[in-house]
Amino acid sequence: MFYVSGFNGAAALLITRDSGDFLYVYGVNYEQAKAESKDFQIELIERGERPLSKIAQKVKSLGIKNLAFDMLGLEGYREIVKVLKDGVKLRMCNKLLWELRKVKDEEELMLMRKAAELTMEGMKAAYANVKPGVKEYEVAAEIEYAMRRHGSWGTAFDTIVASGPRSAYPHGGCTEREIRDGDLVVVDIGASYKYYRSDMTRTLVAGAPTKKQQELYELVKRAQENALLHVKPGVEAKLVDMMARKIIVEAGYGDFFVHGLGHGIGIEVHEPPTLSPQSKDILCQGNVVTIEPGIYIVGFGGVRIEDTILVNLGSYEKFTDGFYSLEPQKF
Amino acid sequence: MFYVSGFNGAAALLITRDSGDFLYVYGVNYEQAKAESKDFQIELIERGERPLSKIAQKVKSLGIKNLAFDMLGLEGYREIVKVLKDGVKLRMCNKLLWELRKVKDEEELMLMRKAAELTMEGMKAAYANVKPGVKEYEVAAEIEYAMRRHGSWGTAFDTIVASGPRSAYPHGGCTEREIRDGDLVVVDIGASYKYYRSDMTRTLVAGAPTKKQQELYELVKRAQENALLHVKPGVEAKLVDMMARKIIVEAGYGDFFVHGLGHGIGIEVHEPPTLSPQSKDILCQGNVVTIEPGIYIVGFGGVRIEDTILVNLGSYEKFTDGFYSLEPQKF
Repeated sequence: MFYVSGFNGAAALLITRDSGDFLYVYGVNYEQAKAESKDFQIELIERGERPLSKIAQKVKSLGIKNLAFDMLGLEGYREIVKVLKDGVKLRMCNKLLWELRKVKDEEELMLMRKAAELTMEGMKAAYANVKPGVKEYEVAAEIEYAMRRHGSWGTAFDTIVASGPRSAYPHGGCTEREIRDGDLVVVDIGASYKYYRSDMTRTLVAGAPTKKQQELYELVKRAQENALLHVKPGVEAKLVDMMARKIIVEAGYGDFFVHGLGHGIGIEVHEPPTLSPQSKDILCQGNVVTIEPGIYIVGFGGVRIEDTILVNLGSYEKFTDGFYSLEPQKF
Repeated sequence: MFYVSGFNGAAALLITRDSGDFLYVYGVNYEQAKAESKDFQIELIERGERPLSKIAQKVKSLGIKNLAFDMLGLEGYREIVKVLKDGVKLRMCNKLLWELRKVKDEEELMLMRKAAELTMEGMKAAYANVKPGVKEYEVAAEIEYAMRRHGSWGTAFDTIVASGPRSAYPHGGCTEREIRDGDLVVVDIGASYKYYRSDMTRTLVAGAPTKKQQELYELVKRAQENALLHVKPGVEAKLVDMMARKIIVEAGYGDFFVHGLGHGIGIEVHEPPTLSPQSKDILCQGNVVTIEPGIYIVGFGGVRIEDTILVNLGSYEKFTDGFYSLEPQKF
């Protein structure tokens, strides 16, 4: 609803071909909706009213004969049917908005570049603060503070600072664990800006990297680079996944790359298209996606390198970039 | 699924009466699930497998004849039915878990007290940093940094620092607006701790409060106090709402209290029970809820005061407390 209306607090949205567009809001958001969504008629849902019955009544009164839903649960469907009975043709149509959303326009790209810049301010703080004796959440505090002070609207998702054995969990979160000398530390962070998000991962070692840590890092880096070489409009997303996976499989670590290569990102942190072995998506110009190969070895640790990129004119543009180093340092 | 299993990254959960409990996870979370959910059998969803078909197969192979769902979409329902056909009685049963979740046990209460303490560290930062010339997001940066440094796992919801005319929007968010002398500033924040959340609002004036600002503040404060007087196990939630609303209505501001009095809180920021004029809930011991009356006047600004409380033994316990002041100060 935010994508279509520019307002973030609506309960429902009705778009008609000829009879105007309606935003349904509860009293708590009514005044803000009127101020921020000038192109929509704002319909107040009164206490005790049911939004879907109200919409069904409106559809009836406007004489609409075809109604498609982008998103609707079982209960909501039943409520609609109760009012509309047989007069209106109902259809689920939940790919339509995703088709629009997965191609970003210039204004969206500007916001996503800004979110990426803010994310890199956070990464700078990560590289300055990861060291033995510091707790994971203390690093997260510095990362989030840096992003916020530079203008982030909040985190794009829960910050991950996963150290030591916990780095082997791709979704390891961020705990009270104290980082120890020699730990791998996976830092997966994102800023958001005006509702658009960014996503970036780097892996550090708190101390001097061992030969095996260095080897895994170089391998993941090469996997990311090989994937990026194949990114362009028109390419199958699963081929890009395969180009990263191939490098890791050939080195004997295929079983340890336990997730897809990446995902679309925008207003939500996970959006279409998907880059994975099963994906049926074709990348096209204006897609913004992550490229994030990883290797996770239980008992040893994990390495992931992730950037947010724009699929663009025969190639790509990196929104997040730099910090390609296993060792903490001041950038 | 976290509530039942203690693990936060599962795709689905199957609990049986006699044949064990199963957690369904994708490869990306498989190792972490095995380490963190010892009481469950961990079932790996392989690439290309559909989780609900896999569960339906398991139900079939275990000879289960009655299957209740806590949460299931239309598509998922169809997938289950395709495998199970007529042999199994299916039932939606989505209030069962809420009935359990809305009464917090001792361990949960400990985590929620901790989340509340962390939230108050954030409020301390708010009172130290709201002043003319500071931007809303800069105040948010200090609040979130204070919560994080003290051990918060993240924000319970997007931090609200809504100043001046924006304070009249209950969900005003947090923007680049610069706070001006005399602005009302609504600060609505929450820390989270080990997946449990807290929620607290105070309203400040950046500068010397006017008589009208002071009057509205006192009114909202009295409304909160009158509601709290009536909180105890066995009371109707709508009565507690009415006790706050009455004060505001009698003062002539009834139309400007545009939301319910409060909501349950726990793993999610909005949970049952609900405190509103339409609520059918009865408060009981172990409920943790917010009490948050507010008055919002477009063009003038808003005032809200909110605390997270535990319904307890004939009365209540405040989890968030203090900071009852319109004026910024060092606490």
